[in-house]
This record gives sequence, structure tokens and C-alpha cells, in this order.
Amino acid sequence: MITVNVELGDRAYPIRIGAGLIDRTDILRPHFSGSLIAIVTNSTVEPLYGERLRHALRPLGIRIETIVLPDGEAHKHWETLNLIYDRLLEVRADRKTTLVALGGGVVGDMTGFAAATFMRGVPFVQIPTTLLAQVDSSVGGKTGINHPRGKNMIGAFYQPQAVIADTAVLQTLPPRELAAGIAEVIKTAAVADVAFFDWVEANAAALSACDQAALGEAVRRSCEVKARVVAADEREGGLRAILNFGHTFGHAIESGLGYGVWLHGEAVGCGMIMAGDLSVRLGFLNADELSRLRAVVHAAHLPDLAPGLGADRYIDLMMGDKKTESGEIKFVLLKGLGAAVLTSVPDDTLRQTLAATCADPAQPVLPGSSTLSPAASATT
Amino acid sequence: MITVNVELGDRAYPIRIGAGLIDRTDILRPHFSGSLIAIVTNSTVEPLYGERLRHALRPLGIRIETIVLPDGEAHKHWETLNLIYDRLLEVRADRKTTLVALGGGVVGDMTGFAAATFMRGVPFVQIPTTLLAQVDSSVGGKTGINHPRGKNMIGAFYQPQAVIADTAVLQTLPPRELAAGIAEVIKTAAVADVAFFDWVEANAAALSACDQAALGEAVRRSCEVKARVVAADEREGGLRAILNFGHTFGHAIESGLGYGVWLHGEAVGCGMIMAGDLSVRLGFLNADELSRLRAVVHAAHLPDLAPGLGADRYIDLMMGDKKTESGEIKFVLLKGLGAAVLTSVPDDTLRQTLAATCADPAQPVLPGSSTLSPAASATT
Repeated sequence: MITVNVELGDRAYPIRIGAGLIDRTDILRPHFSGSLIAIVTNSTVEPLYGERLRHALRPLGIRIETIVLPDGEAHKHWETLNLIYDRLLEVRADRKTTLVALGGGVVGDMTGFAAATFMRGVPFVQIPTTLLAQVDSSVGGKTGINHPRGKNMIGAFYQPQAVIADTAVLQTLPPRELAAGIAEVIKTAAVADVAFFDWVEANAAALSACDQAALGEAVRRSCEVKARVVAADEREGGLRAILNFGHTFGHAIESGLGYGVWLHGEAVGCGMIMAGDLSVRLGFLNADELSRLRAVVHAAHLPDLAPGLGADRYIDLMMGDKKTESGEIKFVLLKGLGAAVLTSVPDDTLRQTLAATCADPAQPVLPGSSTLSPAASATT
Repeated sequence: MITVNVELGDRAYPIRIGAGLIDRTDILRPHFSGSLIAIVTNSTVEPLYGERLRHALRPLGIRIETIVLPDGEAHKHWETLNLIYDRLLEVRADRKTTLVALGGGVVGDMTGFAAATFMRGVPFVQIPTTLLAQVDSSVGGKTGINHPRGKNMIGAFYQPQAVIADTAVLQTLPPRELAAGIAEVIKTAAVADVAFFDWVEANAAALSACDQAALGEAVRRSCEVKARVVAADEREGGLRAILNFGHTFGHAIESGLGYGVWLHGEAVGCGMIMAGDLSVRLGFLNADELSRLRAVVHAAHLPDLAPGLGADRYIDLMMGDKKTESGEIKFVLLKGLGAAVLTSVPDDTLRQTLAATCADPAQPVLPGSSTLSPAASATT
């Protein structure tokens, strides 16, 4: 087992990374107290890992309740959050109850927000079961739900007690979900660590093949970068925004198609190419570097052609982005591989990028990597 | 103008207290930046003070939008909160938008929670227009909404940029609202400052008569106590719980009758007598002190006979209180006037208190101070 610490003073916490951690009572024990543990999971993960986790927690002698949510980004809204609150009150949860997020990014974000807001804040533990959640969303305390007008519009910064990343559970991940996670690995490397980017390039095939050693290394290095960035800028006053590389375009894709049509990571994969294209047009990145980025996104079986929503619709959707200030959309652009900058851009350059990276609006919208990428579609 | 500072490190903020502050551009200016101010108020306060506040803010040259909510505790729920989110997104609010809570405790709690959770947190300014909000709810960062199973069950600790308490606006307060505010003044004095309690006793009539000097003094002294307690224990790990004196019983009354039948302060007024009775039975308070407490609650035109919900119903409602831990209800009891303790109590003693302080369950439930108190009913 490897531990990466997120250094946040009195909100510091460890990320434990290793195979089989979900079964390890000794690893779990230090992070629980009180008289109730409420596991929040979804209908896909519960049959796979629910009972194994409960089995490992039972020796703690704490009452355990399980709350099973419907699966998918389309359910990441207030009504589902309310299911958590209702059930917590039903089972007499109190301020010392620990919530456990057992699942991917959606479960983690919603459970974290429930923990941030139930009785003004109760402890919670992240047990991410997707690659995306292990390398990105479970670390750093961003929690929230979607609003019809934008992704994660309602939320809070709220840190967990611990993140337990069991890399063995990634073996049951569907190929699209795996690819979506690799997108965030690529992103993390691209904005902050060129040596890690080189490594991702060399290991893209191993990651896509769910190689355990490669996945363990990707989780560790991603968490190290993320922990460093979050420790420096917990509430995204500046630096932390670089982790949104590909996300401004990506959120527009997700919101424009309707949440869940493309996975978040698929939209980010494609969004990175769009942001890369914009970086080249503004002279921040050279064409070779963009080619490398495009190749690694492609190798990860992520979509590289954006849906043809139309430039006006894209711009309208991005105007609602959380990084927008005083009506100016802010983009995270690459300044070479391994470094990033947050900036507004000229409207005509943005439109050139949209014209160059989007499908013809007349063309029907395709689903994410499963059909856009030949390799991934072969597996489904 | 008097300033009381809430010392919370990088979340420290001033409380400005004085007559006419709502018209003072110079007082307001330092607390606003960004390109949008969103005033959140209700249908009662907007016609009284909305335009005056906008007039004072206009010289700042920042766009102003106003969001008007329906008035009353019965609307302090998710649907109303969603009105705020929807409208903020409609007017393209961003992370630098400052929300202003212009109203009483309900507007303040909901606006604060919206600020805590919109885009994971935007700045907000409290401009409380009721005595209750000026002496209590606007200070200390407790924000939230009610859940059908309990008051303020969903919320966050989130501090404002500033509190602007204009004591002149209290002149338009209906008598029941004024009495409800005096309840929190009595509470603050009773748990933390016996000299202040003596002062409240001597000035109860002046406060009820809306005497400006007396109100200004009550706001200042209440804020000083509250700022001290909050600075020592922001997230209610211990000491801060004493400010919930009267609230465990009070919340049960509010929830049991349905929110809005009694005002929050009315329920707290009556709840203090119930908690005082319990304090006497457990030997923490003597009968004379309870008589003084009862007399000052009565002098403030607050109800002193609890509704006859039945002991089992009271206990069931209180089991859901946020201070409950591992199934034990925790009560704030007085250890003499000016000091308090947080403790669980024997079930039979609690039932004796309920029998002694509640109306006959067969008796119809009466509304709050307006009819239960002869003096207040004479004014309505």
C-alpha cells in the first residue's frame, strides 16, 4: 500500500492506494467513529462491492446502513441528493455519523455534498471504484450536484477523512469507464508534469488493457500532482483551476448533449483536444505537442471529434461555466506540455477552434468513445 | 455606528450596528466587488427597504439584481432555495457575485446557504431587518434550510463578508416579530452574561416598546457575546452549543405545530422556560432564578405555556435534534443565570418537565405570543 498525503492543516487526510484495500479492516478502522456508518453507493456498485465493504467494516462494531442510488450522471441532481437526506433522517443519523462514498465520481460528489450539508457537516470517507474517481474526483474536496443550466453548479469544498483507492476493483470497470478515467490521468500530466506525460504516452496501451501495475502507478502519480495543487490552492483561487484543462469545452459537451450521453471523461478527452487546438492558435503550444496530445487521447480510446452543437450554442453553454467572470469565459490552455495558463481568448480564435474540432452540426450526435473510437467500439 | 468584530482569522468580519446604515453608501462600499450584486429578500421586506438599499448601492457602479422570495418559515425549504439558484444562473451570476440577504432569519439562512453552495461558494453580506436576525441569526455563519423531519437539517457553516444591522428598520417590525427577537436576547444573556440578563430584566418594557436606544444596546451586547462564542467554537464542537438554550424544546414546538404557526423566537421563548424547569429539577438552577426567567419571558410578551403535543411526540421530535448523539437527546441547561451546560437527562425527569410546562393535549393549539400573551394580544 502507498499513502499520498493531502496537506491541508486541520483538514489534512491520507489517500491510501493499493490492491484489495476494500477488504482491509485494519486500513479502514482509523477513519471511523460514532455509532453509525452510512454507505452511499449505486445500483451497479452495490452488488459488486457493497457486501465486501460491509464485511470489512463489521468488526468495528458500528451500525451500518446502506443507501443505494440510481446509477449515472443523469441522476446527479437535487432529487437524488434528497434521497440521501431522507434516508439519513429515517435511520436517525446524527452529527457523528460517517458517510462513505462507495462508487465513481457521481456517488463521490453527491455523497460529499450530502456530508458537507447534512446537519451542517458530518465526516465522510471516499472509496472510489472508478479510475476517474481514484485519480481525480475523490481527491481535493470538490463536491456537488448538477443544475439544468450547468454541471456542479451547486456544491461545496468539503474534505473527506480519507480516500481509500483499491486498484483491484478497477478490473470490473467497463471499457468506456476506464477510458474516461484515463482522460483525467492525461489531463493531470498535461498541465503539471511533463515526465508523467511521457510515462502516460509510453503506457497508454497498458492502462487501456487494465494492467494493474500501470494503473497503480497512474493513480499514485495523479494523486501526487493533485494533492500538491490542492494543498497550494484548496478553494480554487488560482492555481487549482489548471486541473480544469479540457473541462470548459467538456462541460459544454456534457450539458449540450444532456448529462450521461457522453461520460464526463469522454467529454474531457475531447475537450482537451479542443483546448489544445486553441492553445496552438494562440501560440502557447506547438503543433507537435498538440499531435502528441491528440495521439494519447486517441490511444486511450477517447472521442476526438466534438459533437456539432454549433458555435453559438457552445459559446452560450460555456458562458455559464464557473470560471466565467464578468461575462468573459476563462480557458485553461497549455503552455507547452506540463504547464498551463488560465486566460480569456478572442472570440474569433475561439470560433476557429470550434470550426476545426467539431463535427458538422447536420451530422447526428454520436455517443462517446464506444463508437467514436474504433478500438473501444470493437469491445462493446 | 458601533462595530463588533467576529475574530475568525481569514474568515473574520465586522458587524456594523447603528441607525440608518442601510442608506450609507460609504458603509456598504468596502464589502462589495465583482460585477453583480444579487439582493435576496422577501415580499414583505422588498416594498419597505428594497429600493432604499438599491439606491445606496447604485453609486458603486455594480449591476444589481433583486430576488424576491415568499415570506415565512414555511418557505424555508429546497424549492425556495432553488428559486435563488435558478435566478442567479438566469442573470449570469458568477463566482465573484455578492449575494445580499435583506430580511429576517429565514432570508438570511437561505441566502447564506445559497452563497455557501452556489458554484461552491460566493461572497455574501447580511443586512438583517428583524431583531432576531440582528441579535442572533445573522452572526456566526449558520446557514441552512428545513427538512420535513427537522429544522435547519440541511445547511453549512459559512461566514458573511459583513453584517450591517440598521436598528432604525426595527421600527416597522410587527409586535410578534419584535417579541421573537427579544427571546434571543434573553437567551444570549441567560447562558453567558448575568450582568446583561440584569439589564434585559430592567429594560424589557423599553425593548417591547421598540425604544431605539434600548434596541441598539441589546443588539450590541448580544453580538458581543455571540462573536466571542463563535470565535471560540465556530463549528459548534462544544461551547457554541450553549446558544441553543431553549432551542431543543423550541424546535420540537415549531416542527410539531408545523413551521410558521409559532414564530421561531416564540418557540424559543417558551422552550427556555421548559429548559429552565428541567434545570431546576436537576438541581442546576434554583426556583427564584427560574421565576426571573419566566418573568422576563412574560414581560417580552412571549408564550409561556407549551402546546400540548403529548410527551411521546415531544420526545420523538427531539430525538431528531442535531445535538442528539447515539440516540441520546442533549439539552442546554442553565447552571445559574449566565452559565450553561450541555447534558443528557433522565427520561422521567424530562417527562415531569413536559407535564409541568405543556398545555393539556386535549386543548386546541393556540398561536404564539399574539394570543397567549395578554399584552401582545391587546396590540393586534
